Amino acid sequence: MKPDSFYLSEIEKRLTYGRFVHSLNVADCAKALAERYGADPAKAYTAGLVHDIMKDTPKDALREYVIKSVGGDDRVLMSQKALWHAIAGAYALEHELGVDDKEILLAVRYHTSGRAGMTLLEKIVFTADFISADRNYPGVEEMRVYAFRSLAEAMEEGLNFTIKELCGKRRPIYRDTVDAYNEAVFARMQGE
Amino acid sequence: MKPDSFYLSEIEKRLTYGRFVHSLNVADCAKALAERYGADPAKAYTAGLVHDIMKDTPKDALREYVIKSVGGDDRVLMSQKALWHAIAGAYALEHELGVDDKEILLAVRYHTSGRAGMTLLEKIVFTADFISADRNYPGVEEMRVYAFRSLAEAMEEGLNFTIKELCGKRRPIYRDTVDAYNEAVFARMQGE
Repeated sequence: MKPDSFYLSEIEKRLTYGRFVHSLNVADCAKALAERYGADPAKAYTAGLVHDIMKDTPKDALREYVIKSVGGDDRVLMSQKALWHAIAGAYALEHELGVDDKEILLAVRYHTSGRAGMTLLEKIVFTADFISADRNYPGVEEMRVYAFRSLAEAMEEGLNFTIKELCGKRRPIYRDTVDAYNEAVFARMQGE
Repeated sequence: MKPDSFYLSEIEKRLTYGRFVHSLNVADCAKALAERYGADPAKAYTAGLVHDIMKDTPKDALREYVIKSVGGDDRVLMSQKALWHAIAGAYALEHELGVDDKEILLAVRYHTSGRAGMTLLEKIVFTADFISADRNYPGVEEMRVYAFRSLAEAMEEGLNFTIKELCGKRRPIYRDTVDAYNEAVFARMQGE
């Protein structure tokens, strides 16, 4: 693992200015959520910093990373390039940028799709990405309230939003996202 | 296989008046779609007639049928009683009511959830159930147009509607439904 200053200069080099600022915001927000929910704040900050490290990498290069990392057999995955930067990011961080913390790698890997059985850090980065200071979609203020009130609630909201958005755009829906959504729904049902 | 008159009297006995009328409407509509798309109209009529045969059966009895038919391990399935009557219906038709036509049994089995790799008859009954004469939700007229213009288009619309509705009600989403939806999206993408 290298120091945050190294990852900071890597993302500054690789990302557009807007995406760089977003990454700093997600890092801050992930740290605050980690403090709220008892995760490691330093680790959450680093994961937030690097979560989009491959987001501005050209599509063809991302596809190569995805194929190297998980193969090219999943038709939904291969059709949804919005998912690629997360898989490619985790792969590049592990194999090229010295990240040896598995929790950070998983948090990057699943920050867009979600999955069943997400760790606390994965949920924190997923949620921070929805509520970072630069986000301004309709409903973001409610999401910020949910996020600090109940991580489970924020996850369900975020995943529900993601699935409805995919339906609205008539795009395929990745199974991991449905599994994560169903798990969040069951968690609420049991809590009620 | 018994004659339609037998199944007609069975559904009249088992269903509320409204559901009985709906079943006749779905049968008519499935027959018309079969004529449009080159399936067997008589088989489509019978499948439409019996598709909801267990819909007014009490929940506990339905659950027993589901467990006998597919086991009780799928958490999403066991939490979504809206799916049970289709599985229970196919089971009762095969084991108690003399239906030996596999296509009809599958059309009943998947008329609510959908699945990947649906047969033509399955798609016809799924679609007929969305557009039968008694349906009056907002958008039903457009669905009727889609259904006779392109079965693929109607399937995608219906499945998209189903998933958005489940999200709206904050309910779990069954994998078969997502698989069917994704397949419909890919079919359109390839057709475009």
